[in-house]
Amino acid sequence: MSPGDGTSMDDGNGRQCLVRLEPSEQTVYIAFGGLLEEAITQAGLSVPLPCGGQGRCGRCVVQVREGTVRRRSALRLSEDDIEQGYALACQTLIEGDLTVWVPPHEELVQRLEAGDRAEKAAPEVMLCDHAAKPWVARYQTTVEPPSMGDNTPDLERLQRELARQHGLRDVRPTLAALAKLPTVLREGEWTVTVEIEQGDWAAPDGPYRLLDVLPGSAETRVLGLAIDIGTTSVATYLGDLETGELVDHASAFNSQIARGEDVISRIIYARQPEHRQELQERVITTINALVDEMLARQNLMPERIALATVAGNTTMIHLFLGLEPQYIRTEPYIPAAGKFPPVPAVSLGLHMRPEALVDCLPVVGAYVGGDITAGLLRTGMHEQEAVTLFIDVGTNGEMVLGNSDWLITCACSAGPAFEGAGATSGTPAVTGAIEQVWIDPRSLEPTWATLGDAPPIGICGSGMISLLGEMMITGVIDKGGRIAGHGRSPRVRRGEEGPEYVIVWAAETGAGDKDIVLTETDIQNLLRAKAAIYAGATVLCESVGLAITDVERVLIGGGFGRHIDVEKAIQIGLLPDMPWEQFTYLGNTSIQGAYLALTCREGRAQADELANKMTYLELSADGRFMDAFTSALFIPHTDESRFPSVQRALAEARPERVSHHD
Amino acid sequence: MSPGDGTSMDDGNGRQCLVRLEPSEQTVYIAFGGLLEEAITQAGLSVPLPCGGQGRCGRCVVQVREGTVRRRSALRLSEDDIEQGYALACQTLIEGDLTVWVPPHEELVQRLEAGDRAEKAAPEVMLCDHAAKPWVARYQTTVEPPSMGDNTPDLERLQRELARQHGLRDVRPTLAALAKLPTVLREGEWTVTVEIEQGDWAAPDGPYRLLDVLPGSAETRVLGLAIDIGTTSVATYLGDLETGELVDHASAFNSQIARGEDVISRIIYARQPEHRQELQERVITTINALVDEMLARQNLMPERIALATVAGNTTMIHLFLGLEPQYIRTEPYIPAAGKFPPVPAVSLGLHMRPEALVDCLPVVGAYVGGDITAGLLRTGMHEQEAVTLFIDVGTNGEMVLGNSDWLITCACSAGPAFEGAGATSGTPAVTGAIEQVWIDPRSLEPTWATLGDAPPIGICGSGMISLLGEMMITGVIDKGGRIAGHGRSPRVRRGEEGPEYVIVWAAETGAGDKDIVLTETDIQNLLRAKAAIYAGATVLCESVGLAITDVERVLIGGGFGRHIDVEKAIQIGLLPDMPWEQFTYLGNTSIQGAYLALTCREGRAQADELANKMTYLELSADGRFMDAFTSALFIPHTDESRFPSVQRALAEARPERVSHHD
Repeated sequence: MSPGDGTSMDDGNGRQCLVRLEPSEQTVYIAFGGLLEEAITQAGLSVPLPCGGQGRCGRCVVQVREGTVRRRSALRLSEDDIEQGYALACQTLIEGDLTVWVPPHEELVQRLEAGDRAEKAAPEVMLCDHAAKPWVARYQTTVEPPSMGDNTPDLERLQRELARQHGLRDVRPTLAALAKLPTVLREGEWTVTVEIEQGDWAAPDGPYRLLDVLPGSAETRVLGLAIDIGTTSVATYLGDLETGELVDHASAFNSQIARGEDVISRIIYARQPEHRQELQERVITTINALVDEMLARQNLMPERIALATVAGNTTMIHLFLGLEPQYIRTEPYIPAAGKFPPVPAVSLGLHMRPEALVDCLPVVGAYVGGDITAGLLRTGMHEQEAVTLFIDVGTNGEMVLGNSDWLITCACSAGPAFEGAGATSGTPAVTGAIEQVWIDPRSLEPTWATLGDAPPIGICGSGMISLLGEMMITGVIDKGGRIAGHGRSPRVRRGEEGPEYVIVWAAETGAGDKDIVLTETDIQNLLRAKAAIYAGATVLCESVGLAITDVERVLIGGGFGRHIDVEKAIQIGLLPDMPWEQFTYLGNTSIQGAYLALTCREGRAQADELANKMTYLELSADGRFMDAFTSALFIPHTDESRFPSVQRALAEARPERVSHHD
Repeated sequence: MSPGDGTSMDDGNGRQCLVRLEPSEQTVYIAFGGLLEEAITQAGLSVPLPCGGQGRCGRCVVQVREGTVRRRSALRLSEDDIEQGYALACQTLIEGDLTVWVPPHEELVQRLEAGDRAEKAAPEVMLCDHAAKPWVARYQTTVEPPSMGDNTPDLERLQRELARQHGLRDVRPTLAALAKLPTVLREGEWTVTVEIEQGDWAAPDGPYRLLDVLPGSAETRVLGLAIDIGTTSVATYLGDLETGELVDHASAFNSQIARGEDVISRIIYARQPEHRQELQERVITTINALVDEMLARQNLMPERIALATVAGNTTMIHLFLGLEPQYIRTEPYIPAAGKFPPVPAVSLGLHMRPEALVDCLPVVGAYVGGDITAGLLRTGMHEQEAVTLFIDVGTNGEMVLGNSDWLITCACSAGPAFEGAGATSGTPAVTGAIEQVWIDPRSLEPTWATLGDAPPIGICGSGMISLLGEMMITGVIDKGGRIAGHGRSPRVRRGEEGPEYVIVWAAETGAGDKDIVLTETDIQNLLRAKAAIYAGATVLCESVGLAITDVERVLIGGGFGRHIDVEKAIQIGLLPDMPWEQFTYLGNTSIQGAYLALTCREGRAQADELANKMTYLELSADGRFMDAFTSALFIPHTDESRFPSVQRALAEARPERVSHHD
């Protein structure tokens, strides 16, 4: 039979099927039961197979537009995808004549990212759905010029009009605003634009603060700054306080890292008052550099920033404000405060309007901080009936379980591994960070993808989850996390720090000076981190009489990267084995929540309520946690029956691995 | 008749009278009608006669304990004094046998000072007679230590007890207090002393501010600072906020003087923003030096000062706060504000607790400032029925007329002459300042008294009033203030600056390098100052349909010195010619009022009410003022009939003067 005759045999085995490939319009015949991948190769085309054709990476996806196929595996595909005909070329058997769309490379990458079950659009802001009533608003006012018959002073003259025209009573100027007022009133010929801070969220009707006065109908914007101070990273969002619009964003490592990677080592370092001050200066320097970067990019002056809202774990907030953190560390683990007084920016030296308030979101306890209050606010789970587990994977892993009726929270020390810090070749989720890795099960050669498709500079949290899963599936590591594939490839070697796997040779890296590796020590840190999070989640559920599988939704926050590979996260036992649809990756929930509180007064008030509402479960006092942690130090877990999907994946992968050892 | 026989003749002329002098027990016979002074001289004793026996200085006072005398003059003696037998030896005629007490020198000086009709006890503080409710108060509290069963943070733990034990709800910590709290709670073994600011005078029930926390039952005091910023001088009182007790006081020239002597020249200088900043820095440097001096003397730290209350004229308050003062100077004369927002000390760089508030008392208008609001508060005239005229003689002369029903105020530019600035040998009222002068009408030799009896360093305001009166009475100057006694004494000479009178030769001065003089230019400045004040007072009275003599009481404030010589002040036409008893010299009413507002919350609230209540009369828009000013540029006045007591004094002095010219 010649290609293109349009007929095919209807019976099974041995029958030749006509496969028409689009958009190239090529046709090939393949035996019934052959792989789609064979058809593509035979036509001289290609699809990427970074995982070695094991159906793990999903990169070989094609769309079957007509005809019948059988999918051996549909990992990484949703039901929607399957309904639309998407199929993995390496896992799909031809069972009839087909028309198959083989997408060009770029489109393939795009679809992968867009279709990922737990992907984060960068950066996302939630706007307040209540009637917007901003913290700081502008009003234009025209006042009567003074005369010998009415020599009321400038301030009282303005106050009179603000009350008359805008209903603003008890408007109190900052000294800086009052100092400008006489000149600005005359420069604007008695028409001015004022910036008014609406006062305490506890006292929404005043007193109001007059922050600034500008001549005429000033076109300037009133900006606010949301800050997330993580132990490892600091993120900032610059937003328009009146519209909620996100103007810019920036993030960087917290320069306190030089003085310890986790909160405990920072607290110990801060025992000397000058060190406490140094840590405060370090985080403020980090924040100011981010603010300067955004202001320069937007061509704005620091004075335009009229409010800052800060989320961070309890220790970070203590160090940021210069509070004594020592009693956070020792029993009974007491913070200096739960709710912090707003302080003027000048007292901290932040690059913004000196009189503008810096407002730290409330903490729940020593180890459940304002980052969780903010994150919870962002999730909205406190307004829904479904029992939801919110996990924030940071240097500490904190989580909240509950719904609109109840909320319980706990913290476990995860370490900074998933934030890219502490690992030999770790990096935060910046351009050039390796965010996905696949390992060919035969050659053990990796394929990787970086953020921004830039030359690789290191590996970020999502990359580590991906890599660890691949190493496990391909047998590079054993269930205990020890490197087991020695001799199988030059990439599995003994380095200076002990056994390691080379992801990128130095010559292929962005810097070109050092191999990008994952060492056995790095892996042990990752295991401890994932075990702590999994153990925390299970103990939190048990404490309210639920199995982890009773949870209806899992929301994931953290600084892994653009997305988290849920399949891999389950494979390594970081996340419980539940259908992918139940997971949502929200990205940095702390900065998103801080931004919500910054731009929405009701949101800010809710943050206080949420901090009050959460019940704090102290894990350090809970024997169950240590047991659960120890059991979770294996990949995926000591009790493999908790991870049936991983058992299945291993069963599929095993023959390949075994065949290689032949 | 021999001395001591106890008899005397009863008839008049020619009869010898026995005069018994105590405490020396000497006796002498003097013809009926002879002077007491003759008796004293005849006995070989002496009384000081600095005014040359003209009854002007009151220094020759003695007490007639038995017998009959006739007083030619009783200047400087009150009715009480006369009733008790006090008499001027140079002015009292013997009309019978007498027993006379000739006091030793020291006692005489003391009596003079204590008996002076317009003397100021230094320094005086008025305490609030309302139930004391201080701005900042201490509370001792014991809180429950935390446990694993109650891990409430430190701040919320303290707040709970402050509400429970002291009824203080909504206590908000400063960042500094919160930063110390964890350490202090544990150091004090859960017993602490807190310093609580009671909040706004407009909101006496909170929110409260936690300013400081100290371990255990701290014995420290809570101090407040009252500041009077004059154009020429700055005065400070340091007081205990809980008891009202005055702890220390200090004053100095305002170092802004280097940039102009009056408010107008300072405003002109401040046109450049860097000059405005310089003037702010200068006054703050002056204040900080005074604070440092008091703190060093009391061995206290700046952090003990928890509040400052500031009084000053409108321009001084603008420059102190760094506000634009330009529109004060030009029509329609508009200050930036009438009521100023309290600002934290750190924003001004004052040497006190950085978070402590600095509260400027409200101003009435461009030229009636917070010094008058404070002064008025001090006088209490707003609570009394008697129509009272309160004159504050500073670089600007401001005055208030009224009673409990109404208050009217005005200002006139007096210049700094009476504050000791601007004059060739002027000095403020400090140790070594010449505060009184008498001139012998024959020799024109002066006698003078200095503050602290120290070697003279210059002449202060009260000294200039005294000197100007003497020069007028002795004919050294004419009614126009021109030096007229040339050739009568080497002290009346032509100096580098024109005609002048030498009060102290260089060799007799404290510094020893320069003669202390009063030049004709100085005198012209003094004349303009006294004319402005007298004219202001008369126009103010006229504006409400009163003659100045209808005023029931005149209260005088200012920095002249320890006392003002009312007789001389009337002689030169500074004060209206009214019985001495109607005058009261209160000293620096501005600092006293500021201290009252500092230590008494009701006083502070009254200051706002008083500023609202005063009607402001703008003299620059009032043709009557210029007429009145021109008429008052003579000594005592163009219309001598307004000063009958001065006419009498001149009539008494004239024969002497004339005899000398023979």
